[in-house]
Amino acid sequence: MDIRPLLYVIGILLTTLSLSMLLPIFADIAVGNPDWKVFFTCMIFTAFIGGALILTNEGNEFDLDVRQAFLLTVLSWITLALAAAAPFALSGLQMSVTDSIFEAVSGITTTGSTVMTGLNDAPPGILLWRAILQWLGGIGIIVMALSVLPFLKVGGMQLFQTESSENEKAMPRAAQLSASIGLIYLGLTLACMFAYRSAGMNSFDALAHAMTTIATGGFSTFDSSFGHYDDAWAEIVAIIFMLMGGMPFILYMKALRGNWKALFQDSQVRAFLAIVVLSITVMIAYLVLQNNETFGEALRRASFNVVSVITGTGYTNGDYNLWGGFAVILMFFLMVVGGCAGSTTCGIKVFRFQVLYAVTISQLKQLLHPHGIFTPHYNKQALPAGVAASVMGFFFVYALSFSLLAIGLSFIGLDFLTAMSGAVTSISNVGPGLGEIIGPGGTFQPLPDSAKWMMCGGMILGRLELFTVLVLFLPHFWAK
Amino acid sequence: MDIRPLLYVIGILLTTLSLSMLLPIFADIAVGNPDWKVFFTCMIFTAFIGGALILTNEGNEFDLDVRQAFLLTVLSWITLALAAAAPFALSGLQMSVTDSIFEAVSGITTTGSTVMTGLNDAPPGILLWRAILQWLGGIGIIVMALSVLPFLKVGGMQLFQTESSENEKAMPRAAQLSASIGLIYLGLTLACMFAYRSAGMNSFDALAHAMTTIATGGFSTFDSSFGHYDDAWAEIVAIIFMLMGGMPFILYMKALRGNWKALFQDSQVRAFLAIVVLSITVMIAYLVLQNNETFGEALRRASFNVVSVITGTGYTNGDYNLWGGFAVILMFFLMVVGGCAGSTTCGIKVFRFQVLYAVTISQLKQLLHPHGIFTPHYNKQALPAGVAASVMGFFFVYALSFSLLAIGLSFIGLDFLTAMSGAVTSISNVGPGLGEIIGPGGTFQPLPDSAKWMMCGGMILGRLELFTVLVLFLPHFWAK
Repeated sequence: MDIRPLLYVIGILLTTLSLSMLLPIFADIAVGNPDWKVFFTCMIFTAFIGGALILTNEGNEFDLDVRQAFLLTVLSWITLALAAAAPFALSGLQMSVTDSIFEAVSGITTTGSTVMTGLNDAPPGILLWRAILQWLGGIGIIVMALSVLPFLKVGGMQLFQTESSENEKAMPRAAQLSASIGLIYLGLTLACMFAYRSAGMNSFDALAHAMTTIATGGFSTFDSSFGHYDDAWAEIVAIIFMLMGGMPFILYMKALRGNWKALFQDSQVRAFLAIVVLSITVMIAYLVLQNNETFGEALRRASFNVVSVITGTGYTNGDYNLWGGFAVILMFFLMVVGGCAGSTTCGIKVFRFQVLYAVTISQLKQLLHPHGIFTPHYNKQALPAGVAASVMGFFFVYALSFSLLAIGLSFIGLDFLTAMSGAVTSISNVGPGLGEIIGPGGTFQPLPDSAKWMMCGGMILGRLELFTVLVLFLPHFWAK
Repeated sequence: MDIRPLLYVIGILLTTLSLSMLLPIFADIAVGNPDWKVFFTCMIFTAFIGGALILTNEGNEFDLDVRQAFLLTVLSWITLALAAAAPFALSGLQMSVTDSIFEAVSGITTTGSTVMTGLNDAPPGILLWRAILQWLGGIGIIVMALSVLPFLKVGGMQLFQTESSENEKAMPRAAQLSASIGLIYLGLTLACMFAYRSAGMNSFDALAHAMTTIATGGFSTFDSSFGHYDDAWAEIVAIIFMLMGGMPFILYMKALRGNWKALFQDSQVRAFLAIVVLSITVMIAYLVLQNNETFGEALRRASFNVVSVITGTGYTNGDYNLWGGFAVILMFFLMVVGGCAGSTTCGIKVFRFQVLYAVTISQLKQLLHPHGIFTPHYNKQALPAGVAASVMGFFFVYALSFSLLAIGLSFIGLDFLTAMSGAVTSISNVGPGLGEIIGPGGTFQPLPDSAKWMMCGGMILGRLELFTVLVLFLPHFWAK
């Protein structure tokens, strides 16, 4: 395999990452924190490696074959995570190598699980760096979901091959598409920032939270996350932009081109919003009936936390572990569901459940009429050949990866709830887990290093839609 | 739909059930317990209804169509469970209607979850009745798996259509096959009884435990289950016969006909035993390394409880909840796995995981070679069309049913571990759950009635391989 084009692309990505370190440099200089030197060193070093990779691998063939595309995807995320970890390890926080890599992987995959405490007093550079990682990760995910995964036919993503979209014969090519989506992403981030600002956040917090909201990442600048503000307006802003981060960004592009209907007629968006509304309603019922909360309080708690969990953001404004068994179990399953394909969210994703539902119904009909022909549909169109099998295979592999990760985590000593929720929160890139240790009231800091490494693996596996990583483990992949 | 042939079959089943009440009658008379009158009344009543159904529906067309077969399967199990519940409600134990039906459903589905305490002092009639229910349920399941489910093509069971078996052109017909299997089942039960007897159990306990061992049911005549004996030999007998109960009974028939190889060459049996050995090994490692147990003690605990859980029997000889998070989570996932198709076990079953694994590998290869053709194999043969989709669909429906049941159980107040394990233990027909309440050290008695009803639904749903029940909910099913 010719890996030179891969190194070239990774060089570009590293250079971009190094440029983004300018922001924390300025932030730390502004408050006189010496960490700016760390970021500066890391920037130079990353830029040097990136530049070297670009220069030594320029001018090669750029038609990637399937194997190259898989390897590039996996290598890019791992390399970026490693490069992004350096500032954590070298900064004044003196985090261990494991913790630094965990935090970086959690950032760039937009998971939002953190090993850091004392965020309220942390220097602005490192806080901004965490937000930037999630923000860059977020746009990376969308571009990957739009242009790479459909091409690789991972887990039914071939449903979203844009070339075959109706009414759009002159589709922009991948790069152009990515640029448009990037502008929308930037626009939404700015809109979110101004909304937070007008809800009373200071500019720095508004920027940092805007970056991690639209990326559905969930890193906050406070240990107590949104509990720090305890402000209904800020929470409403967060709810709106987390939901927007959880919907397919390509539909925003269509909307900007005048096709607003596309957004509201998309069956995935409708199903996603239906699940959100249903979950909030049931949660409110539970909080009012079982915990005797007032409707207003229940509405506020339920809507913020349900949206935060299903979109895989991971902000909290209170510890839902204390709400009782139902809240815990509902959050657990919402983590599995996730948002829409083509968004910044992770999890199994809504369209796959729609496909699975359609397939199940047609299988049931088939049982009754063994000689009938029943074609499952998605978004009013018959499913293309292979999509049903891809999606069902994805579901199994998700369940299997989750199970093995949970078993592994428990083997090194984690309890049932911590291991189960730790596995799902990392594969689904949510952020906090459930239970006392890694729940919304805790951090991942106390876990043994081996658990953190397993979870890093889970986060990358989940982010890359499982198959993209697993395919590298086929002996076949490396055969000449 | 013509339901007369259905009523006829149900009549036969009810008559059989009523005849089986003779055993508890004799047992209670022998010790002078007045409950024999209850069983006598129930016997007469059940026989009357059964006889009436037979007489009024005799002489009808007996070629069941698909819809009739589905309805018959579901109705049979529900009717038998209801009829079997009567002695519990009317006996000296004075169990509530909910508890009686729960115990009967748990019995006939060979689950083994119990709401009864004070078993050590319970009258022999009721103890025998519990064992008989599981024993009858066990043979019912095998016959269903051999003759009904493959014909209905439920969840990939069409793989086991005996007509198409190699080298057996003159296959016995379904009734003949069932009779042979029934004799083998009886023979194994007797062998198990004598083995228990020689391990030191008294005759009554040996009979009751033999019936619930080979049926992988798990009802015991003691509150502390096998902990009561605390005898390694009895446990070894149990392990051997639980494993035999977890393997395809058709292979025993082949073995008796001289084809011993079939048993050991069957890929499902090999995979099943491999999973058992692997799980026991890992559990021993955990018990020795983390809990500092001796190897001998770890071996005994791990092998007995792992086999008991994966076969869905549910005997215990100690509370594995106290062994730490890993034991709890491993048991949880072993409950999901289950034994072999064509056995008395439940759960997803080993062959489905083999099919899912084969499908996943061929999907991964497909990703690398989009234009290649990769056919998944099972037992060295290419999977017939539709089997992969059936199995993957089954896996999704299992996961969905489990999730909804767990959410439902938590909504009425159960904690995370109780709700999760309660859902899986009922759908997989295991017996005890996990945690303090319904774990090996507890019973299902303290649960609210609504939870017991949900679990009854789960047990029947799981026992009938989900699709058999769900198909009745298609509006299509009832359309003229």
